[in-house]
Amino acid sequence: MQQKAVGLRDILIIMKQLRVELNDKSYPIYIGSGLLRQKELLLRHIKSKQVLIVTNTTISPLYLDRVVGSLPGFQVEVIELPDGEQYKSLEYLTKIFDQLLQKKFSRNATLIALGGGVIGDMGGFAAACYQRGIPFIQIPTTVLAQVDSSVGGKTGVNHPLGKNMIGAFYQPQCVIADMDVLDTLDDRQLIAGLAEVIKYGLIRDLQFFEWLEKNIALLLARDKNALAYVIEHSCINKAEIVAEDEFESGIRAILNLGHTFGHAIETGMGYGKYLHGEAVAIGIGYAADLSRRMGLISETDVERILALLKSATLPVIPPKEMKVTQFIDLMSVDKKNVDGEIRLILLEAIGKATLPTNVDQSLLEQTLKNYVG
Amino acid sequence: MQQKAVGLRDILIIMKQLRVELNDKSYPIYIGSGLLRQKELLLRHIKSKQVLIVTNTTISPLYLDRVVGSLPGFQVEVIELPDGEQYKSLEYLTKIFDQLLQKKFSRNATLIALGGGVIGDMGGFAAACYQRGIPFIQIPTTVLAQVDSSVGGKTGVNHPLGKNMIGAFYQPQCVIADMDVLDTLDDRQLIAGLAEVIKYGLIRDLQFFEWLEKNIALLLARDKNALAYVIEHSCINKAEIVAEDEFESGIRAILNLGHTFGHAIETGMGYGKYLHGEAVAIGIGYAADLSRRMGLISETDVERILALLKSATLPVIPPKEMKVTQFIDLMSVDKKNVDGEIRLILLEAIGKATLPTNVDQSLLEQTLKNYVG
Repeated sequence: MQQKAVGLRDILIIMKQLRVELNDKSYPIYIGSGLLRQKELLLRHIKSKQVLIVTNTTISPLYLDRVVGSLPGFQVEVIELPDGEQYKSLEYLTKIFDQLLQKKFSRNATLIALGGGVIGDMGGFAAACYQRGIPFIQIPTTVLAQVDSSVGGKTGVNHPLGKNMIGAFYQPQCVIADMDVLDTLDDRQLIAGLAEVIKYGLIRDLQFFEWLEKNIALLLARDKNALAYVIEHSCINKAEIVAEDEFESGIRAILNLGHTFGHAIETGMGYGKYLHGEAVAIGIGYAADLSRRMGLISETDVERILALLKSATLPVIPPKEMKVTQFIDLMSVDKKNVDGEIRLILLEAIGKATLPTNVDQSLLEQTLKNYVG
Repeated sequence: MQQKAVGLRDILIIMKQLRVELNDKSYPIYIGSGLLRQKELLLRHIKSKQVLIVTNTTISPLYLDRVVGSLPGFQVEVIELPDGEQYKSLEYLTKIFDQLLQKKFSRNATLIALGGGVIGDMGGFAAACYQRGIPFIQIPTTVLAQVDSSVGGKTGVNHPLGKNMIGAFYQPQCVIADMDVLDTLDDRQLIAGLAEVIKYGLIRDLQFFEWLEKNIALLLARDKNALAYVIEHSCINKAEIVAEDEFESGIRAILNLGHTFGHAIETGMGYGKYLHGEAVAIGIGYAADLSRRMGLISETDVERILALLKSATLPVIPPKEMKVTQFIDLMSVDKKNVDGEIRLILLEAIGKATLPTNVDQSLLEQTLKNYVG
């Protein structure tokens, strides 16, 4: 980890640099202020004349010019997708391929994903598949994308029957997390991102969890130092786990705490109704409840977890439209399952997650019934 | 390489085993007679209860029962796609994902691709993407698939604007090439497969080329020993190249001799009109002609190459519907191109290909004009 202060005209750029260690696929994560104005950062990672920027209709009017302005003399093409989880589909993925082919992009071309988790996942997956793989760069523009989804190479799209069911492990050339873009992020998006932040504390970092308990109000007030700390600390956690287990054959699965429940909500309610972070927050509450029923953590632990989620103003009550049977049905398609049997990440303590664990179906149903019909 | 004779009831099974060396992704290629009746071979590579067989409407009535019969006690599901290159598309790929999700397949499930190159490429790509990767097995049923496409992990689908433009490098658990299935292969398919066989001789194996010159009639007469020799020898060539350069950053590109021209024909005429091998045969003639114009090989070499293609009854004249400008346009999207500039595999001699080479546009046009308007 390095800290740099770079004077660029009259803008002071403070940047931290982390690294995801994956041998010949290692790459840097740049975190800081003013990074999108620092052309050199982007140019350092582009080895082609052809660049496709994948973005959405919300981000494009705000930040596209800044990125395009960093690329004079390149063949820059842009594809703007509609904004929302419901567009993270094979149908919209195809539009990226269409554009790449219409513009005759070669295999050395670079794809830049400029947006939140949806754009990062789709852009990355398009890059993974186009001509069997072209280089790509993540420029995440939401808290959720900066702390989690842009790091680690999980890319993909949703299927009507399951979230993130079609995709690839495909690492970017770099991640450029410019905190300034969070200024235009609405509160709902900012708060949703905190669910993944709390997750890191729960699965492997008690001290971070305790820090969050004390400082959640600063984050909600968008305190720059607090946000910087949280982004950096989350990325360190993510990078360490990914370096250990790129393809999720083991420990990486703990990053899925709350996600099986959360994915069921996202799929069941229709993609886009709940933000991913909101669904994960509810799922974390479920996972805590089930962990208690399985004798792994105490009632006090559960209350403490719910208290932090609530103080972050995250939802903890599932949509009343969803029934137990629907949850079970949706959860039976999940990447942690083996031979069709549901396995979940649970908590052994605040700060320590289990590996994927077979669950007692009746206890799972009790947890679900605790909230839904 | 090993040779085995295994008595199974009253069937004598002669099997050769090669190996594609790719560290933790290494896998065997089994070549022989009666292999689909040897249950143990398949079972050795299946670690799941759930198995999806991807096949087509031509192969299914012939060989599906034999494969299903090897899998008692498994949850076996089948998807039958229509037969032909025109169905190697994202649209039909989606049907495989639908089936996997409807049947709630887990990430440890196994996909078996039972068919020719189209089924192998699509089945492999579906396996690569489903839940970011599930194990798969290739059971190639055409000469082309047995000598080339089933080995080496190139998977993918076509796009209306370019052949194999969307895909992944994704290695199978094993390749089971049962020569008996070639008995039901029609002549046109068998002959098309010989184009890829001749390619191996041209790019790196003069002795094999000379063997083919002497023995092409035996292959056309479906002589079992000659076919066995050709499948084995082609797979050895392919496995060596793939082991050296899995992701085609260098030498692997020579396997593309004739393919840029060939892909242009396939795309330009509409997928399925020309078989892949037929288009490649025409493309090999083009590559030879251009190699001569660029001063790399002699007119005698070109004639010798065309003579072998013709004696294999492969086409060497392109479709008259296609124009030079259309060729250039289609060839400008190719995985070997850099920054949009056309690069081709050419010949320095019979038995020696060049790495991707920038070509003189006017010489390329001369080659194209030699045949088309």
